[in-house]
Order: sequence, then C-alpha cells, then structure tokens
Amino acid sequence: MTSTARAEAAFTDIMTFPPPEVTSPAAAHILAFVFADVWQRPGLSRRDRHFVTLPCVAAADAEGPLRDHVYAALNSGEVTITEMREAVLHFAVYGGWPKASRFNMIVDEQWHRIHGERGVEVPPPPPLLPLTTPSDPEARLAAGEQSFKDVNCLPFAPARDDPFHGAGILNFVFGEMWLRPGLGMRERRLITVACVAFQDAPYPIISHVYAALKSRDLSFTEMDELTLHFAAYYGWPKAAHLSQVAAEQKSRVTEEWAAEGHGQSA
Amino acid sequence: MTSTARAEAAFTDIMTFPPPEVTSPAAAHILAFVFADVWQRPGLSRRDRHFVTLPCVAAADAEGPLRDHVYAALNSGEVTITEMREAVLHFAVYGGWPKASRFNMIVDEQWHRIHGERGVEVPPPPPLLPLTTPSDPEARLAAGEQSFKDVNCLPFAPARDDPFHGAGILNFVFGEMWLRPGLGMRERRLITVACVAFQDAPYPIISHVYAALKSRDLSFTEMDELTLHFAAYYGWPKAAHLSQVAAEQKSRVTEEWAAEGHGQSA
Amino acid sequence: MTSTARAEAAFTDIMTFPPPEVTSPAAAHILAFVFADVWQRPGLSRRDRHFVTLPCVAAADAEGPLRDHVYAALNSGEVTITEMREAVLHFAVYGGWPKASRFNMIVDEQWHRIHGERGVEVPPPPPLLPLTTPSDPEARLAAGEQSFKDVNCLPFAPARDDPFHGAGILNFVFGEMWLRPGLGMRERRLITVACVAFQDAPYPIISHVYAALKSRDLSFTEMDELTLHFAAYYGWPKAAHLSQVAAEQKSRVTEEWAAEGHGQSA
Repeated sequence: MTSTARAEAAFTDIMTFPPPEVTSPAAAHILAFVFADVWQRPGLSRRDRHFVTLPCVAAADAEGPLRDHVYAALNSGEVTITEMREAVLHFAVYGGWPKASRFNMIVDEQWHRIHGERGVEVPPPPPLLPLTTPSDPEARLAAGEQSFKDVNCLPFAPARDDPFHGAGILNFVFGEMWLRPGLGMRERRLITVACVAFQDAPYPIISHVYAALKSRDLSFTEMDELTLHFAAYYGWPKAAHLSQVAAEQKSRVTEEWAAEGHGQSA
Repeated sequence: MTSTARAEAAFTDIMTFPPPEVTSPAAAHILAFVFADVWQRPGLSRRDRHFVTLPCVAAADAEGPLRDHVYAALNSGEVTITEMREAVLHFAVYGGWPKASRFNMIVDEQWHRIHGERGVEVPPPPPLLPLTTPSDPEARLAAGEQSFKDVNCLPFAPARDDPFHGAGILNFVFGEMWLRPGLGMRERRLITVACVAFQDAPYPIISHVYAALKSRDLSFTEMDELTLHFAAYYGWPKAAHLSQVAAEQKSRVTEEWAAEGHGQSA
Repeated sequence: MTSTARAEAAFTDIMTFPPPEVTSPAAAHILAFVFADVWQRPGLSRRDRHFVTLPCVAAADAEGPLRDHVYAALNSGEVTITEMREAVLHFAVYGGWPKASRFNMIVDEQWHRIHGERGVEVPPPPPLLPLTTPSDPEARLAAGEQSFKDVNCLPFAPARDDPFHGAGILNFVFGEMWLRPGLGMRERRLITVACVAFQDAPYPIISHVYAALKSRDLSFTEMDELTLHFAAYYGWPKAAHLSQVAAEQKSRVTEEWAAEGHGQSA
C-alpha cells in the first residue's frame, strides 16, 4: 500500500467515510501526517483523541471539519450523544457561547443525519430537570467553592463578590457545569486543556494543565500526546506553548508528589 | 414559569425573535445562563451589552449568532445604523479586517431584512466626505498624537518613524478612526475592551483596560460586568485573564487618583 | 544521523540557534515534521516560508515562538528590517492591531538583541514622511479604488459611503497600506493568505486566494505549499478549509484564463 493509500484507509477508519480526493502533494502530506501518523500513536485512545479534536475544530470555525468530526465521533460510537451534548456545554464555557451555539447546531444536524441514514427515529432527549445541584444560592456557591478546589487541586476558592467569580465561576462554571453527570472527568480534562491551549490566556493554561496532571486524570505521557494531537489540530505555535507549560507543570507536580511522599506513578 | 420558559422569554425579549427549539438539557442550560441570568444583571444596560456582544460574535466566526445579534441590536432600536457601521470599522481595527468584512456584509443584509419586514425603503447612507480630520499628513500625525494621548490617558505618543506606529497607529487608528463622529467614547471603550480581551496580546489589554477606567468612561463595576458578559460570549479562559488585568488596573488607577487627590467616585 | 538529530540540525539551520531540549517523543515528532519535513520541501523558498510563518505565530499569541521566528528571519538575513516592519503593518490590518502591537514590540526587541550580539549600533529608522500617496481625501479615495481593483483583480471597487469601506478599506487599507514601498507584492500575498486563513471569514479567504492566483503572484503549486506550511503553523482544520478554497479558486482561475486565451503557466 502506498503511503497515500495507507493515509486514506486510516482516514476512512477514523472518520467512518472516505477522504476527499487528494489534489496535491501538500494535501497528501497533511492527510498522512494527521491520520496515518498522529491518530495512530499510542498514549491516547481514539476516543480520547475525539475529545481533543472536537474543541479544536469547534474553535477553528472550519465548519466542514467540525461537521465531519461530529459525525465521525457519533457514527463510530466512540462518543455517545449524551457525552457530545455535555461536551458542547463544556466547550461553551471554555470556548465561548457563539462558537458553541454553532457546534450545538451541527450536533443536532449530524445526529439527525445519522438516524436518517440508519432509518430510525431520533430518540427524545432526557429532561433537563431536576438538576443534581442545589438551587439555594448560598448552597450553590458553597458547592461551587468545593468543586473549584477539587477540580483545580487548590486549597482555596476565589472571593465571590465580583460578578466574574461569583455569578460566573462559582455559581455556574464550578457550581453547576463541572458537576453535571453525563461526561467523565477525564473527558472534561481533555476538552479543557485543548480549550485553554487555543485561548492561551496565561493563567488558565497553567492552572488546568497543572490540575489535569496533579489529579492524575491525565498521565505525563498522555499530556505529551495531547500536545502532539493539539499541534496537528491547532498548529505548532500554540502547541509549543502548551508543551512548555506541560514541562513546567510536570516538574512542579513531581516535586509536590515527592514532598507528599508519592512517586510519579501517574 | 419553568426556568426554561423564563429563559425563552428572556431570549425573545432581548433578541426580538423566539429562541430555537431547545433539544438538549445542555442547550437549555446555556440559554438560561446567558439570557435569563447574565443579560438581566444590573451594572451594564442592555444597550451596553450589545456593544460587548457584537465584537465577540463577530470574532467568533459563528455566522448564525452574528446575524442574530446584529438583527436584535438594530431591530430593537438599541443600536442605530450609524453606530453599528462605526462599530464595524472600530472592530476592523481591533479584530482584523477579514472578520470585519463579514460583519459588514451581515449588517447590510440584516438592515435590508428589517426594512423588508417593515415594508419601508432602506434610506441612503450619509456621504463619507468631507472627513472631520485634517488631510495634510503632518497635521494628521499631530492630531493622531493628541488623540493617542487622550484615548490612552498617557502623556506621550509613540515615535512615528516605524510603519506600524506612524502609518498605522498615528495616521489612521488614532488620527482618523477614533475621532470619527457617530459612535460615543463609552461605546468605543466597550468594543475595544472586548477586542483586546479576545486578541489577548499582553500590552493592549493592559493599556485599554487602564484607559477605560482612568478616563472614567467605564466604572469599576461596569468593568466587572463587562468581564462576566465577555466570559459568556468568549469563554472563561480569556475572561479570567481580563478579570486579573482589571483587578490590577483598578489598583493602579485608585492609587493614581489618590495621588491626584480625587476619590474613586467612578 | 538519527531522525531527531536531523530535525535538530534542520531547526538550527532555519532558526539560527539550537532547538530546545527534546523531552518527549511527541515533541520530537513535532520537531521532525515541522523542521526536517515541511520547511525542507520545494515549492516555496525559505524566505517565502518566513512570510507565512510570521503572521501565524503573531496570531497565535505564543510569545516564545514569535520571538524565535522574528529573530530567525532577521538574523538569517532572509527578511530585512524594512520588510519586517511593513509586515507588521500589513499584519495589523489583517490580523488585528492588538496582536500587531505585540509583534511590533518583539521586532524592536529582537532587532536590538541582534545588534547587541554583533556589537554594532542599531541604525536609525527612515523617516515616515513624505508619504507616497495623495493627501487630498478625494484623491486618496480614487487611488484606493484603483488599488482595490488591482490587488483584488476585480473590475469594481466598493461604494465609499459606509465607514468600513470608505474610511477604512478605500482610504487606508488600499489607499495607503497596500501601496507602501518596502514590501513586495508576493510577500504581501503570502502574509494576506495566511491571515485570511486563520481569520477564516468566508469571503475574504475566497477573494484573496483568488487574487493571489489570478495575479500570478503565487503559482498553483506555491498555494499548495503555503497550505501545508499553514497547516503546520495554524492547524489542520483551518488548513483543510484553505485547501478547499484553493482548489475551487484554481478551477475558477483556470477557466478564466482559458476564456481569456492564456495558458495556466503560473
């Protein structure tokens, strides 16, 4: 099999449909690198790689790739519809509502397409209510503070009396969104790290890479693979930054574990 | 009223048309947070919130939300067509011309749609010329230097002999764009802060947050609300960075005001 | 030589300094793909590739890579300081001024660093004035309209009576910026295509890819290589979109050339 034929087979296997016609050596080259190489590497499962890919394509505004990857993730069964919908909400928080709104629309569209292709009805969605989190504002904030500490692996939570931290971070992001059932912690970590890497504001990338490693939700090797996958989907400069942050946070976590008497078993 | 019904009513009230059908708990959740919660908060008027929302949706490349928000802002009468067109030009500078080009196209399209719905003719635009700024290059640069100092609340302007600062910043951005009539200083501040927050290069976000506060064009509370609104529309990581910059610049401005003998009445 | 050693040698050759220590297989993999593979391909010169790389790293907010690539382009002599400064202004228009402001600052910093390392004084910049473009607003707009047609390979220019097109596009972007000496048309094309590809608003990417091909400033093969290089520096999803646009515009240009009686000698 030529390398282009191998890349095309890899694409079809991952995406559940055949690749577009390759019209230039440069396009063949990209196809080979992304599908025959990056997606095939050990360290992250195919399912994991979907959770890194989806936020990247949702952020990149390239509607074709977004449509293709939503279809592939659902049609292959690697990602359930419940997980996909929670991923949209998680992405909304870390990548912004307008892009999430489009992402959500494309999930609807592809979910209908898949059911149409299979000749079966789209099942009704589960009801939103009741929520699993408290309604009382004081209790919500308390839950948000605990969740903030748990997710960020920090001993403190921010003060509640500015709108960003109070009404936003504690009340909604940690008091509600991160606590929703339907999407695992590992998957939330993969999505979050991809999002802070493309948004690349200085502190969130540090705090979320740290927390993903410190919590042992992602191992050091998995973080490296995430970085490579992200490079393919969001480019080398932001990946280089992520790589540097990951190296620093690995050192920090290793030192902390040593001080706490744990080895780097992650 | 259920919380989804309340969110739908809030959406309709703000957007001037009913919300899309809610097909998942995650979508219901976003709707409730953004429209029934963030948009309803005191501290920024609904009109102000449009000037934060528009650059975010224009930057996000999600064409549906951009179309919807341009329609809502114009159809509700909260933003005039003259202000909207100046907002496009201001956005072009701070968010990039390619995205502004699409924004402009959608303003044309929605402006025609609104007039079509009302059965009235689209009025002709006011003529571009004469400009209110000097034509002579030396006079333009002098006006640009003064405007740079005024807008940035700084005692100096950059040297003119590099193309970015001379031909760009002094000649056009401050020598022309910021001086155009048709859009108020407060509205330009809201747009600019949103843009520097999503572009998130380190210095512009500091200098524009500082200037918005120092000029008293935006109060401390308004900056906090802007940050929360921005978080909903562009994601928490960049908003977290904005929040930190805002906290630092509030301290800086408070100290400067104290040294100047003014209270923090802003 | 191992493939990592080859990649490290390629990095050093292009960047004019040795690569960072490779701390993971994933990092080694990225290094090999970007430097030993993409940068070495025929179809675009190393100098050309700098003009694609610079806007990508300036857009990505990754300060380390931006610093490294500005240094490499100037220190290698592939890009002159005059070209670099015009590239910053061109990038400001297509990528947004806040990011351009940081890019400009880093050009200053690296230019001083290079002169420091060589033990020579930084030469003074050439004066901004006189400009080569007309001062009279009516004459500027006329020059802007002609330049708009020439650059975009179109028989018409937009109406001047909306601020985006009049005060912005005709008066400044085409009436001034594209007409400045100091940076060639080919280089402006490379920067512009990279910028419209990461901004990815639907029309500008079409019009600028079309014009780059139609003007024969970039050949079909060069556009393909630009797409691959862009993929490495800004990620696969946006590159996939660029690739599709390029394929469509090649067809369009080929048909137009056939109708005009020219061959596709580009």
